[in-house]
Amino acid sequence: MTTIGTIGVIGLGLIGGSMAIDLKRTQFVSTVLGYDKNPLNGATAQKLGIVDRVVSYEQLLQESDLILLSVPADAVIRLLPEILDRCGQRECPPIVMDVCSVKKKIIECVATHPQRARFVATHPMSGTEYSGPEAALSGLFDGKACILCDVEHSDADCVKKVECLYQALNMRLLRMGAESHDLHTAYVSHLSHVISFALALTVLDKEKDEKNIFDLASGGFSSTVRLAKSNPQMWVPIFAQNRDCLLPVVDAYMEHLKNFREAISTADTEHLNALIDEANKIRKTIK
Amino acid sequence: MTTIGTIGVIGLGLIGGSMAIDLKRTQFVSTVLGYDKNPLNGATAQKLGIVDRVVSYEQLLQESDLILLSVPADAVIRLLPEILDRCGQRECPPIVMDVCSVKKKIIECVATHPQRARFVATHPMSGTEYSGPEAALSGLFDGKACILCDVEHSDADCVKKVECLYQALNMRLLRMGAESHDLHTAYVSHLSHVISFALALTVLDKEKDEKNIFDLASGGFSSTVRLAKSNPQMWVPIFAQNRDCLLPVVDAYMEHLKNFREAISTADTEHLNALIDEANKIRKTIK
Repeated sequence: MTTIGTIGVIGLGLIGGSMAIDLKRTQFVSTVLGYDKNPLNGATAQKLGIVDRVVSYEQLLQESDLILLSVPADAVIRLLPEILDRCGQRECPPIVMDVCSVKKKIIECVATHPQRARFVATHPMSGTEYSGPEAALSGLFDGKACILCDVEHSDADCVKKVECLYQALNMRLLRMGAESHDLHTAYVSHLSHVISFALALTVLDKEKDEKNIFDLASGGFSSTVRLAKSNPQMWVPIFAQNRDCLLPVVDAYMEHLKNFREAISTADTEHLNALIDEANKIRKTIK
Repeated sequence: MTTIGTIGVIGLGLIGGSMAIDLKRTQFVSTVLGYDKNPLNGATAQKLGIVDRVVSYEQLLQESDLILLSVPADAVIRLLPEILDRCGQRECPPIVMDVCSVKKKIIECVATHPQRARFVATHPMSGTEYSGPEAALSGLFDGKACILCDVEHSDADCVKKVECLYQALNMRLLRMGAESHDLHTAYVSHLSHVISFALALTVLDKEKDEKNIFDLASGGFSSTVRLAKSNPQMWVPIFAQNRDCLLPVVDAYMEHLKNFREAISTADTEHLNALIDEANKIRKTIK
């Protein structure tokens, strides 16, 4: 089995932490180095045994065979070119990978970089609404889809290792162009977050007048509003970077919403029936 | 402990079935009679041991000490006046209760009925996105809120028995006027369903062109779209009956959505941060 000696995890949150736990558990990596710009996250990750050692940023770049950049999308754009610069100075440059939910801008920011081929753009599609090293958990990626983007611009040996890494986490691998990826995730992930944030804002607004509204919140509301607990550090850069894909998707959603509202407004029960029948087809695809 | 001899359940679906299971299990009722206009549901409920006997509609009205009307809101409006007529002919008229998610129109439809006081309007706030007797399950109501509406128009002995019934299911009892109830449920339940139906329609529309979009659906999408599996027989009458409360709530939601869209569109990351920070306050109230 292809394995990796030392992995360096930059960003010890939910994703980086969960990957570190299972890569160590499955013995896919021998040593996990960790760095987080927030020293508290480093200390917590160390205490929880998520990393073998918390090291300096310099040391991580120097000693890792594979660098996992598990930070928000804006931080990736800030750090990635510089990391590739520094890696290029090593005799045997490491593999660098990110795990963001948005890919086009990230890939563009290193498109002409001399070390571009050492970078593999990935998106393991799993998560929870919680963040930080305390939220990291074993099994988070088990059975889920992972997309590798624009692999033709990465060295074959890098792609191979990264694929083995995700196989060790038991992920289903898919390959996709960055543009397709960003459009698809706008539909199946980013839109759900927009919807949920707007729902939370609507109900919180109402709660200002009606103190006990949440007494009545049943399971239906909890599941629809769950994603509204997701943190802005991760989501603002995703929305900003994926704006061009996301806006038409939000607009398409608003059209469906208006249409549904109109059917309620005119008490057109036949139309409402037809719309809900159609929506029910989601049962076939989502368990 | 106050108990009931014979309960008659009209409508052997998720709610009626789940209540029957636990009322029998806790020995709050001795005998469960069942009727469903769909004979297949009756046969399934009998086979699964949800009811002691499936009987005719006539027989159920004649023999039950308490009649549980667990049918969609439009069927309640059709059946309730007639059931109260018939019950009035019995020497000792039974208690009649409904379990709908919308209350004002139902209460109005029997406001001047001579047997009005035998009716208790209730809303046990629990459910799943599935329906039919196969979906019924023990523990569905455990620890959840149950609202009794306009109890001042029901006989005290009826209200007492119905409260005991819900206590046997371990529900948290609340009392509320029908108008308040309908507005609150528009916020914390009906709006979530509208949102989820519109999401399903949006993504299904896209899938017509892109066959593999659901390969990418992660946990976030599943939880936001879950309610879109809910059936039209139940939800069309709720939307129709609660139209006056629901439309302004949908409009408030659309305003928040437009505002959020605008912040994405102008790449106003500061505003997006503030909106998500605000939305995150939902963490305090929803576990």
